[in-house]
Amino acid sequence: MSTLDPALGGPVMPTRSALTPLTPDQVRITGGFWGDLQKLAAEEIIDHALGMMERHGWLANFDRAAAGTLTGKATGMWFVDSETYKILEAMAWTLGQHPNDELERKYHALVARVAAAQEPDGYLHTYFGRKGQQPRWSDMELGHELYCFGHLIQAAVARLRTGHDDQLVHVARRVADHVLTEFSGPQARSGICGHAEIEMALAELGRATGEQKYLDMARTFVERHGDQTLTPWQNGTRTYYQDDIRVRDTQVLAGHAVRALYLASGAADVALECDDAELASAVHTQWQNTVAARTYITGGMGSTQIGEAFGEDFQLPADTSYAETCAGVASVMLSWRMLLAHGGAEYAELIERTLLNNVLVSPAEDGRAFFYANTHHLRTAPEAQDDSDALHAGGGSGLRKSWFATSCCPTNIARTLASIHLYIATTRGDALQIHQYADAEFAVPLLGETLKVQMSTAYPQSDRIVLEVTEAPAAEVALELRIPAWAQGTEGLSLTLHGDSLPLRLTDGRAEVRRRFTPGDRLTLTLPREPRLVCPDPRIDAVRGTCAVERGPWVMALEDLDIEPAEGAPPHTGDTPPATVNEVSLDPAIAPSPVGEDSVRIGLQRLSAAPSWPYGQAGTTDPEPLTAVMRPYRTWARRGPTTMRIFLPRVTDTA
Amino acid sequence: MSTLDPALGGPVMPTRSALTPLTPDQVRITGGFWGDLQKLAAEEIIDHALGMMERHGWLANFDRAAAGTLTGKATGMWFVDSETYKILEAMAWTLGQHPNDELERKYHALVARVAAAQEPDGYLHTYFGRKGQQPRWSDMELGHELYCFGHLIQAAVARLRTGHDDQLVHVARRVADHVLTEFSGPQARSGICGHAEIEMALAELGRATGEQKYLDMARTFVERHGDQTLTPWQNGTRTYYQDDIRVRDTQVLAGHAVRALYLASGAADVALECDDAELASAVHTQWQNTVAARTYITGGMGSTQIGEAFGEDFQLPADTSYAETCAGVASVMLSWRMLLAHGGAEYAELIERTLLNNVLVSPAEDGRAFFYANTHHLRTAPEAQDDSDALHAGGGSGLRKSWFATSCCPTNIARTLASIHLYIATTRGDALQIHQYADAEFAVPLLGETLKVQMSTAYPQSDRIVLEVTEAPAAEVALELRIPAWAQGTEGLSLTLHGDSLPLRLTDGRAEVRRRFTPGDRLTLTLPREPRLVCPDPRIDAVRGTCAVERGPWVMALEDLDIEPAEGAPPHTGDTPPATVNEVSLDPAIAPSPVGEDSVRIGLQRLSAAPSWPYGQAGTTDPEPLTAVMRPYRTWARRGPTTMRIFLPRVTDTA
Repeated sequence: MSTLDPALGGPVMPTRSALTPLTPDQVRITGGFWGDLQKLAAEEIIDHALGMMERHGWLANFDRAAAGTLTGKATGMWFVDSETYKILEAMAWTLGQHPNDELERKYHALVARVAAAQEPDGYLHTYFGRKGQQPRWSDMELGHELYCFGHLIQAAVARLRTGHDDQLVHVARRVADHVLTEFSGPQARSGICGHAEIEMALAELGRATGEQKYLDMARTFVERHGDQTLTPWQNGTRTYYQDDIRVRDTQVLAGHAVRALYLASGAADVALECDDAELASAVHTQWQNTVAARTYITGGMGSTQIGEAFGEDFQLPADTSYAETCAGVASVMLSWRMLLAHGGAEYAELIERTLLNNVLVSPAEDGRAFFYANTHHLRTAPEAQDDSDALHAGGGSGLRKSWFATSCCPTNIARTLASIHLYIATTRGDALQIHQYADAEFAVPLLGETLKVQMSTAYPQSDRIVLEVTEAPAAEVALELRIPAWAQGTEGLSLTLHGDSLPLRLTDGRAEVRRRFTPGDRLTLTLPREPRLVCPDPRIDAVRGTCAVERGPWVMALEDLDIEPAEGAPPHTGDTPPATVNEVSLDPAIAPSPVGEDSVRIGLQRLSAAPSWPYGQAGTTDPEPLTAVMRPYRTWARRGPTTMRIFLPRVTDTA
Repeated sequence: MSTLDPALGGPVMPTRSALTPLTPDQVRITGGFWGDLQKLAAEEIIDHALGMMERHGWLANFDRAAAGTLTGKATGMWFVDSETYKILEAMAWTLGQHPNDELERKYHALVARVAAAQEPDGYLHTYFGRKGQQPRWSDMELGHELYCFGHLIQAAVARLRTGHDDQLVHVARRVADHVLTEFSGPQARSGICGHAEIEMALAELGRATGEQKYLDMARTFVERHGDQTLTPWQNGTRTYYQDDIRVRDTQVLAGHAVRALYLASGAADVALECDDAELASAVHTQWQNTVAARTYITGGMGSTQIGEAFGEDFQLPADTSYAETCAGVASVMLSWRMLLAHGGAEYAELIERTLLNNVLVSPAEDGRAFFYANTHHLRTAPEAQDDSDALHAGGGSGLRKSWFATSCCPTNIARTLASIHLYIATTRGDALQIHQYADAEFAVPLLGETLKVQMSTAYPQSDRIVLEVTEAPAAEVALELRIPAWAQGTEGLSLTLHGDSLPLRLTDGRAEVRRRFTPGDRLTLTLPREPRLVCPDPRIDAVRGTCAVERGPWVMALEDLDIEPAEGAPPHTGDTPPATVNEVSLDPAIAPSPVGEDSVRIGLQRLSAAPSWPYGQAGTTDPEPLTAVMRPYRTWARRGPTTMRIFLPRVTDTA
């Protein structure tokens, strides 16, 4: 079907970059925390998504299109084709690590259904162009045609990078060529898609196929943002689609968060491939300014429900936060590109924070229900709902839902988890950088030989990471181990080789171990995960006068049902906890202490009774001492509908 | 046209209540602060609104309906008829105080256009029922038919209460009778209007006409709330229209703020007239709980833009506050009913706070531009816009707009200002209660004789209020003067008679002067308006760790352009202020001091530079001392587009 001999790779394979990503044959997650999650994606989330898409008729859209029986409105929202493509991408990455006949059959069957719907000129979208449907390209603002194409192309890239030039790749290339016919050349359409995605998809297709034309088209789309060809969105501006100012003139991410982050990712790809230092610098500045002033403690991005958008600097309300799961996925994509381009550990650190807190809070333990938006403070417990047969809206409600009318988050989680092994390490010269700790095996070429390392850890549920070298080059090479900012400077931080302490020299936030390794060399890294208070910058109005609690990479959350009388206090009677999360303040005299491997005990005081007019009295607390166990934000609402908060008031310092 | 001999009155005339409202012949505002505002309403706002409604074709809807040429969609939103009715109400109250031939002519001309559009069966709405239009009563959720009728009825009540039983009254009674035909009786429709308003309108029409049938219908509509006949609103519940639970089972106001407040006002009217203690108590509890936990410091209500709705308890973000001007007007309506029913000064105090801050911030000085929503913190100055020919959306933008697609606020301000003299005093037995201070004359019957009082003051721009008795009953009577909570217990608080101090005995928040008055008796009340820090209850997450500044009844606001280097500090160079409102914290060592009659000087410190990751560092300030003048919130953005905030961080108390 093609003459391409695909090069193996991960989700992003720049031609040149500071760090070089690993390829699927160089890394494998063998189990543990991330292994369980990859298994959840492969065995549950993909299956759940396929079932839901079948049940709600989204997959049948392709069959009806192929059969010529699709006239009028297709089933579901106009962008549901993209969910099929994200699941195909998840399948492709999964098969690339763990071949599996049944999954392989499902993959090919699904690809065949998609391929059958492709039109002779390469166009492939179930919502547009047929009798009774809107014409193709009639709604560049919200039509999502190029967006859907982009996800199809990313799925094909995953297939190429895992060694297969198959039917999906063929379909995607025909789609991409159709895009070029429509949108490049002097007679072509001048627009952009109102939802960025095609940019990074085409850049990656260009990299994966070696075809410059796709990169050129990607670059053109990136550069067209700011042409103001899109009709202003509801609120009167084009910021929603990042069509108000040029990417290279943008200082901070704004507008719809997923759109902004996908566009910045595409721009980063284009900047690297075209050696466009100005564009690269602009994207880097956007990342820095966004992280400094528009990001939640969980890594969540996009604070306002209206437009699912970034707020202004420091507009980060905890109680109405949107922090869409997909924006977390998109943030990981952008930070990964920054890590490859610039090499610093801060990008890997934000990836970890975002994955563990903003993204992994979404799926339920069984992989069959999800948060779409992610609040950071819920004052009132929702009522339990039977959601077995409904398509839900995405607002943050405190209830994970089985499926959504716009169901981008479950499929985005699936493809992210399926490819997560490709985000944990890189190489540069004679060094292997470990960015994320997991049970994993590495076999990477360094200096023309191979370094094989076996990494074993229960992290993030443990402090200890063991790396055993099982094959080493003859020459000196280096292992670079990321030391999280929260572990730096702590007493228990240590790195040993066969039990002997090694000096900890940090470069770019990583400890380097440079030596002639021999098989059997065993390094043990200890990252003390002592609970710590984390106080927000006073510019963040919404959480001023509070502190959060973190332990290792976990951001902790408090739920009503974990509040109880302090030791020695009179026992509490009644069915409900002695106070809600809205009625307590952190007791500053009691240091947080660890409980188990991921929880933290804190001291609380009850706020005194609320006044009849809430302006004018300084806050005080009742003498009644309380205590609570905080658990990782990721696990909140797993025990049923509840209230929750991350940032806890400190009352003693009111005026 | 009718046999009715209308009784004079104000906007609410209960048959029985703790306090008795004055009638238009008993009170007149003679000038000063409120006189200027009444003049603004009479001479500018009414004229501006009529001009805009003519220009945008809203008034022509009536002419087209009368001519039979209105088919298909009427011009403007489907509830624009109501703006005409609110302006008619404003005209009626204005004419009731200051007869004016030109305004009288305009009033009758407009009434004639409205009357001509009434259909033979009494129905009167330009948006429904004609060829090409939606059928009558086909959208109880959002159609606003009864809502528009309610405003028409309120305008007619204003006309009755100012002594006229004219064409407008005739039209309104036919409309009301049509409503009874449609919605009462065994065969009648069972629904309610998705926007409360008809309830208080019919209750008031019943009072003004003495017809029990209107009161019964009002009661029925109030009781039907909670029947859940309306289709759930966007977010999946009926809370938006207060159709989820019964009014008598409601503990706190929720859903769309104006709807909730109008309904509570109607329920208060019904409760008083029907002597329904349970319903009265429920509404009173709603007022208390809403004031304690769902009200901004400005008196603004309804914190969330989504659904223009009340948030949860203590969900009062300053930066995304909605606090719609109309909700302020509606809150005044409800508090006035509470004042009449219960008599306590706290209701009058909230009326003053809400009028001076949340309502009066809306109109520009020239009465020709308005805020619809009212933010309490704007981080970024908007760009100036030419709005001379557009219909604007209502979101809080920092720019007053000349007119809105939904233009409820300007007309609501007009009718409120036009009737404000009727809210400043009441009688009970042998006493006159003064609730609001203004240049005004009173002539009230006490013990069968007349007490005439001339009140003179520049308040709220001055501390001093002078009351001169010009005619007095022979027997002992009482003057009760509201002492605002902020003045109680202050050193300079004083009340003198001919210069001699009187003892200050407070009952229900009022100082009583009981004596045999003689003409020429001259009381002087001094209410010291010293600047004061006001710190929010720690439950209000959005403003924890801040204080606001108040002076007298004014809530103060800080704008960028009032920030400057402290005395003795190096002078600041450059075109922009030395810091924005987002970069400063209140210097706790410097007490606020008065500037002029309504401003306050405060000490500030600059926040130290923002970190690259905003969680983990305690806030600090730079040594650079700053100072600023805060001005009444009401006047913000009068000097051009700017940033603003009310609550100022106190940084010294971060952990």
